[in-house]
Amino acid sequence: MRAAVLRNGRMIERDDVTEPVPGPGQVLVGVKACGICGSDLHFAKHGKDVVALSAEMKGMPGGGASPLDLSGDVFLGHEFSAEVLEAGPDTDAPEPGTIVTSLPVLLSPTGIEPIFSSNATIGGYAERMLLSAPLLLTVPNGLDPRHAALTEPMAVGLHAVNKSAIQPGEAALVLGCGPIGIAIIAALRHRGVEHIAAADYSHKRRELAETMGAHVTLDPAQGSPFDTATPAVVFEAVGVPGVINDILRRAPVATRVVVAGVCMEPDTVLPFFGAPKEISLQFVFAYDPMEFAESLRAIAEAEIDVAPLITGEVGLDGVAAAFDDLATPDAHCKILVTP
Amino acid sequence: MRAAVLRNGRMIERDDVTEPVPGPGQVLVGVKACGICGSDLHFAKHGKDVVALSAEMKGMPGGGASPLDLSGDVFLGHEFSAEVLEAGPDTDAPEPGTIVTSLPVLLSPTGIEPIFSSNATIGGYAERMLLSAPLLLTVPNGLDPRHAALTEPMAVGLHAVNKSAIQPGEAALVLGCGPIGIAIIAALRHRGVEHIAAADYSHKRRELAETMGAHVTLDPAQGSPFDTATPAVVFEAVGVPGVINDILRRAPVATRVVVAGVCMEPDTVLPFFGAPKEISLQFVFAYDPMEFAESLRAIAEAEIDVAPLITGEVGLDGVAAAFDDLATPDAHCKILVTP
Repeated sequence: MRAAVLRNGRMIERDDVTEPVPGPGQVLVGVKACGICGSDLHFAKHGKDVVALSAEMKGMPGGGASPLDLSGDVFLGHEFSAEVLEAGPDTDAPEPGTIVTSLPVLLSPTGIEPIFSSNATIGGYAERMLLSAPLLLTVPNGLDPRHAALTEPMAVGLHAVNKSAIQPGEAALVLGCGPIGIAIIAALRHRGVEHIAAADYSHKRRELAETMGAHVTLDPAQGSPFDTATPAVVFEAVGVPGVINDILRRAPVATRVVVAGVCMEPDTVLPFFGAPKEISLQFVFAYDPMEFAESLRAIAEAEIDVAPLITGEVGLDGVAAAFDDLATPDAHCKILVTP
Repeated sequence: MRAAVLRNGRMIERDDVTEPVPGPGQVLVGVKACGICGSDLHFAKHGKDVVALSAEMKGMPGGGASPLDLSGDVFLGHEFSAEVLEAGPDTDAPEPGTIVTSLPVLLSPTGIEPIFSSNATIGGYAERMLLSAPLLLTVPNGLDPRHAALTEPMAVGLHAVNKSAIQPGEAALVLGCGPIGIAIIAALRHRGVEHIAAADYSHKRRELAETMGAHVTLDPAQGSPFDTATPAVVFEAVGVPGVINDILRRAPVATRVVVAGVCMEPDTVLPFFGAPKEISLQFVFAYDPMEFAESLRAIAEAEIDVAPLITGEVGLDGVAAAFDDLATPDAHCKILVTP
C-alpha cells in the first residue's frame, strides 16, 4: 500500500509498504484525513536531536515504545480520522464504514506504542493503519472527517487552557498564532474567557486568531505585547529561544505562564526576572483521554468551528511539498493529508 | 554613630553615620542582631548587575524606592531584631526597651523604601535604624533577640513551602542546604511533611539539614539526588546555572519545582525536558506579612529551633571578615552581626 515516510530528513511517497494486519484488540482503518503538525516538521528537521535528548531525559514512565532508527524509514502522522475496515480476532469494534478517531497510541502485546514517529507503527500519512479498539471514538453528527482530524490539535489547546486554570474574568495573552496558539485561542473562547489578546508577526495568522476568538490581536513588530496587555495568564506558543526570558522580563507580578510551544533548542533565561515577580512556568504537552473526547464533542457540536484552520489539502504525493510550504508561516495554518 | 556599609564592593566600618531621626509613624530602634544573608553577599559582589537588571525588568509595581547609587555608600542588613528607643512625633509605638522585629520596609512620606540596599535608609548593620511603627512585631516569650533576627530568613522558607502547596504525604527534595534550603527544610518539617530529602556537597550542611528535619541527606558527589529520590516537589535552593536544567532533565513526571535560589546569571535550559513531563517551575521570593508573623510565632513558641543555624557572631568591625568567611560553605550557616 501507499504511505508517505520520512527518509533522510525528507518525506517521500512509497507504494510498497506492507499492509498492516490487525491483531487481537486492534482494528484496521482507512485513513480519511491526517493533519500535518509542527512537531512532524520539527522531527523531520531535528530528528537526531529529538532522539538524543529523549535518551538523556530521565523520569518518564517506560512505555514499551520501540527504539527509533533514523537510518530507516519513519512513519509520522498523529492527527487523523479514519474509516473502520476490519477488526482483529476476538475484537469488539464499530461496524465497517464507521468514521472514528483515536488517541494516537497503539496497544499491542509488547506495550504501548505512540503513533507519532516509529519505524514500525504506521501513522496517518498512509492509506491504512492500525488503531486500538478500546481507544476508538466514533465521530458523531455526520461530522466531516477532515474536521474530525483536528480533534487532536484542538485537544492540545484545550489541555493547555485546563492546566492554566484560567477563569472567565482573567485576561489571557497568547504568544504565537500557529496551530497550537490558534487551538488555545479557540479553547479560551469556548471556556468564556472575556479578554483574549493574541500576538503574531504574521498578518494572516492574526486574522485567523480573530476569527477563532481573539478579542485583540497584536503585532510584536509594533512593540512588545506587554506594552498593551496585562495578562493574568500567558500562553507561550512560539517555541523559539528567547521568548520565555522575554516573558519573565516583561510579564506582570504573579503571571502564570503556560509553555505550550516546545522549544527544542537550548534556551537562556535570567531567573532574576522571574523571582521577585513570582512568575510560574507550567510546561504542558498533549492532553488526557477526557480532553481528547471533549475536543471531538466540541467540534462535532459546532461549538468550535475548525474549518478556518484548514488552509490546504494534499494527497500522499503532496506531503513533501506541504512540509516545505508549512515553513512559511504566512501561507498556511493546517494542511490535511487525504490519502 | 557606627555602621558597616558597602563601599566599592567591600564592607567597611564607619563611625560618622548621621544619627537617624524618626518622623511621624517611625520609630528609632537599637539593633540587637542582624543576620548576614546570601543576597547581601551577592549584592556586594554583583551590585552593578542587580541594578542594571532591575532597570531592565518590567511589570513590578512602583514602590517609591530611591534610586541606588553604587558610587556612594550602601546600607545593607534586612534580617534584624531591635530594641525600641524612641517613637517619632504623633506615633503609637511599643514602650522603649521592647524587643521587636519588622518586615524590612520603611514607610515614609515619599513612599515605601525597602530596608535591603539603600544609600539613605539604614539597615541592620548599624547601631541604630528607623522602623515603621505599624509594621513592628513585638518579640514574645522572652525570645533571645539573636533568634528573633532569624524571623526573616525562616519566613522565606515558610513562604516557599506555602507556594508549593505540598501535602504531608508528598515527598520533598531540597537541593542546596544553605540558609534558604535549611529554612525550607525546617518549614517542611513544621508542616508535617513525612519524606524530606536534602542534598548538598557539604558534609556540615548535610548534618545541619538532618538537625533541622531532613529525613534523608544526599551527597550529589555520590550521584544525582534523583537516583534515589522521587519527589513530588523539588525546592531549588542552590541558585547557580545548570541546576534548573538538571531538574527538568531528571525529575519525575508532573514534578512541581519551587525555585527559591535566585540565580543571578543567565541560565540555560532545554524546554524539551520539561514539556513531556509537564513540569512546573514556580519562582518564589520573600513572604507576605502573615507568613512573617507566623515565622516569628513558630520560633518564639519553640516549634522551630533556629539555634543550630547560628554559626558565628561578629561586631560591626567584623562584618567585612564575615562576608569573606561566608564564601566558604562548609564553615558557616548564619553569622549574626550584633552591633
